[in-house]
Amino acid sequence: MPLKEGDIVTIWIDPKRVFLMKIEQGKRLDTDRGYILHDDLIGKEYGEKIAMSKGNAYLLKPIPTDIYSSLPRPSQVLYPKDIGYILYSSGVEPDSLVIESGTGSGFLTIALAYFLGDNGRIISYDIREDMQKRALFNLSILNLSNRVTFKLKDIRNGIEEQEVDAVFLDMPDPWNAISPIYPSLKSSGSLVVFVPTVNQVEKTYLSMKNNGFVDLHAEELILREYQVKENAVRPKNIGVMHTGYLIRGRKFIKENRN
Amino acid sequence: MPLKEGDIVTIWIDPKRVFLMKIEQGKRLDTDRGYILHDDLIGKEYGEKIAMSKGNAYLLKPIPTDIYSSLPRPSQVLYPKDIGYILYSSGVEPDSLVIESGTGSGFLTIALAYFLGDNGRIISYDIREDMQKRALFNLSILNLSNRVTFKLKDIRNGIEEQEVDAVFLDMPDPWNAISPIYPSLKSSGSLVVFVPTVNQVEKTYLSMKNNGFVDLHAEELILREYQVKENAVRPKNIGVMHTGYLIRGRKFIKENRN
Amino acid sequence: MPLKEGDIVTIWIDPKRVFLMKIEQGKRLDTDRGYILHDDLIGKEYGEKIAMSKGNAYLLKPIPTDIYSSLPRPSQVLYPKDIGYILYSSGVEPDSLVIESGTGSGFLTIALAYFLGDNGRIISYDIREDMQKRALFNLSILNLSNRVTFKLKDIRNGIEEQEVDAVFLDMPDPWNAISPIYPSLKSSGSLVVFVPTVNQVEKTYLSMKNNGFVDLHAEELILREYQVKENAVRPKNIGVMHTGYLIRGRKFIKENRN
Amino acid sequence: MPLKEGDIVTIWIDPKRVFLMKIEQGKRLDTDRGYILHDDLIGKEYGEKIAMSKGNAYLLKPIPTDIYSSLPRPSQVLYPKDIGYILYSSGVEPDSLVIESGTGSGFLTIALAYFLGDNGRIISYDIREDMQKRALFNLSILNLSNRVTFKLKDIRNGIEEQEVDAVFLDMPDPWNAISPIYPSLKSSGSLVVFVPTVNQVEKTYLSMKNNGFVDLHAEELILREYQVKENAVRPKNIGVMHTGYLIRGRKFIKENRN
Repeated sequence: MPLKEGDIVTIWIDPKRVFLMKIEQGKRLDTDRGYILHDDLIGKEYGEKIAMSKGNAYLLKPIPTDIYSSLPRPSQVLYPKDIGYILYSSGVEPDSLVIESGTGSGFLTIALAYFLGDNGRIISYDIREDMQKRALFNLSILNLSNRVTFKLKDIRNGIEEQEVDAVFLDMPDPWNAISPIYPSLKSSGSLVVFVPTVNQVEKTYLSMKNNGFVDLHAEELILREYQVKENAVRPKNIGVMHTGYLIRGRKFIKENRN
Repeated sequence: MPLKEGDIVTIWIDPKRVFLMKIEQGKRLDTDRGYILHDDLIGKEYGEKIAMSKGNAYLLKPIPTDIYSSLPRPSQVLYPKDIGYILYSSGVEPDSLVIESGTGSGFLTIALAYFLGDNGRIISYDIREDMQKRALFNLSILNLSNRVTFKLKDIRNGIEEQEVDAVFLDMPDPWNAISPIYPSLKSSGSLVVFVPTVNQVEKTYLSMKNNGFVDLHAEELILREYQVKENAVRPKNIGVMHTGYLIRGRKFIKENRN
Repeated sequence: MPLKEGDIVTIWIDPKRVFLMKIEQGKRLDTDRGYILHDDLIGKEYGEKIAMSKGNAYLLKPIPTDIYSSLPRPSQVLYPKDIGYILYSSGVEPDSLVIESGTGSGFLTIALAYFLGDNGRIISYDIREDMQKRALFNLSILNLSNRVTFKLKDIRNGIEEQEVDAVFLDMPDPWNAISPIYPSLKSSGSLVVFVPTVNQVEKTYLSMKNNGFVDLHAEELILREYQVKENAVRPKNIGVMHTGYLIRGRKFIKENRN
Repeated sequence: MPLKEGDIVTIWIDPKRVFLMKIEQGKRLDTDRGYILHDDLIGKEYGEKIAMSKGNAYLLKPIPTDIYSSLPRPSQVLYPKDIGYILYSSGVEPDSLVIESGTGSGFLTIALAYFLGDNGRIISYDIREDMQKRALFNLSILNLSNRVTFKLKDIRNGIEEQEVDAVFLDMPDPWNAISPIYPSLKSSGSLVVFVPTVNQVEKTYLSMKNNGFVDLHAEELILREYQVKENAVRPKNIGVMHTGYLIRGRKFIKENRN
């Protein structure tokens, strides 16, 4: 299907030059490896090799991993390795109702919007309007903004939603949000928390343990990237050694609540 | 919503005793920590603490991670850490058409069925009927068997499907399947391969590089589990050091094909 | 040089059957892979392949790594990966004066005795006599017992030695030993601490930082073992994920001490 | 003991500013954090805090880890994590006779000179004179040059030394040196090889297996550095993911050689 105005594309030049954007007539993408006019993309197809002013690029259909090299983002984001595991281990499904806080970089928001699809319901709480604006902008480039509701509220004061399938927390003091979200989370629903320090792991885990969660796990994922050349395969020398820890558990019905 | 005959449940006793099953009247679950009658689960709700003949358990709503401790499986399976990353990085969506081969343990099959939902289309190729039967049995326990079509065929002979969004390979010689599946994969669609040895990484990666794939990555995920006690947080001593490597890329339209 | 009564040998059958022992006339080594009479080793040389009652073994000259599979030991020991790094990063030399506490498994004691040689002076403090007896026994098998002085004392009460080149601590509360050992450690000398939990890392590191140590490092080593077969190289599946953390620093002369 | 002309010192400003040097009258150390005159170090002691023109530094007694931040070096060096393990697992002792090739960065050479002490005998083979000159220069700064003999020869042509306790190889094709060094290595002596790619691991390991070595191990060490602040402990984000693999084994007497 030929591309048209408003479609989203990823211009992939090399692993460090990946540009996710919406086609807008009259615009131009400038890179240190040459430029291309948006108009020249109209009528092309995903998967084509295209000519930039200095060399070639590939025109790809955007997928969530493309956002890491291309969308505006703050220094700290959730990485694909963590997001994939968060989604899988939380047990969310295409029609789930999920809550996240904070909105943060919006990278988990985007992944949720993408994987839950049209029937998912995603509510994103944050106390910083600038973060939510950036996340909304990023979502809109991907034509996913209609799938997320942003609430400019402190999740530590509680949430309005009921029968929530899963809650995702990426905030400095997640243990202060556990009691507030507890009544809204479905019985057997998942809480998944991301924190950068071990001290936060301890507080979060013990707080979940003491507040009605079972099947608790504190985990960390390390991704190693390999350089593959003929007869010379080895891990890349320098890389990301640490992003954060994941703590997850499932709510049970506390006896004093029966 | 009270549980009834035919519903699926996870009986969670402790991290090493997790039982995923379908409620069948008259049946009984026996464990080394006591038994429970299926009939006694009817009318209960997900999230309840239940009494076994010797001690308590939790009655949870099954999610894909539960299958690791409870379903029959061969020695080698895809682990949650790998499956989460495979799903995320492949860019599949709730309505995608995907192919996998081999069916293997069926654990990726289950994850695909779960995450693509009712509108996804999953075709699973394998040359071993016993593997497909086991996978089908596992899917049926989870009420997901209607979402997958099994084909008892060698993917190296090509596939009938067209405009496939993503192909997943977990087989000894994935490089021999690359040309056969190439015409059926959508332009810009993902191929994700899982292999246990570095030698297979080299062959697969170079074969993808030479056969119309771009945005290539060879990666490995290491999961560390933590033991969390008050004032005593540390990684668990013994664990899974290695499952396999992931190689992924996206198809571009080869010039000699235009 | 032909082996004789009293010499030490390693009988290496396979990676899991390694026997370090002293040749004693009339004795016999029994294993589940057959036995051999000590008398039959006399006159042989290091490096020879020898016949056990059921199959072959190799007769090797003992080195410190052999002790892991062969000497009596408690459940928690310092591993080669940690000991190698401890020795190297502490800057000890063949004639150093070093202190360790606790004696623990004695595996660091053995390594120190081995690497510092005849001119090294090693003092090992512990409050448990049984641990010191076991360490002494292990040292004597290796003919190294004359290189170590054991003191059945609590290092937290201070040490008598002066101008110590390096102090090694492997004890539950190393932060309580820092002030007691400080006056005895040479200026610019190293303190290296091994602890299993992150909480102990925090307390030790901050206590060293606040008590006259500089060039501080908190580190952890992960060892991956590979299985190498032709055309099939991969890390072993299961392994040691964690032993402990190392904290090291060098003493500076606190200003209030001038 | 007060420092004097010709003594070696480490000027430690912060983890990224470590300067190992020999005191030479009239000279001056310039850094982006200020300068200090060598003359001002004379009479001071190891462990003292000293005043640079802009801020403080610590005057430390050099140890091998200091060379990483301070000595001229090529891009690829053996790291402390690897060197510590190489030394420990090879079983070298203070009076060992050891061979290495290539000289390379000379960082293993320095470690051997330091740990084997005055009685060790170290022979370093390399075919590049520039590498040996740099290594010699580095050794001389540390007053260790008298402990090493450099040979400008290709080790693949064999070595003259006999009854060598251990051989260390850090070269592109170590498998080509195994037969040449075999007759010179003591029976039961260690061969330890360092290589960056997995392909080299396979060739080296299989070549050692087929050429008279037993107790074979192919291993890799990953070092994680931690950032420790009060109530905020976590691994550093970016770090060295890979340096190389270690393959080690011990020589046995091949039957056809008897």
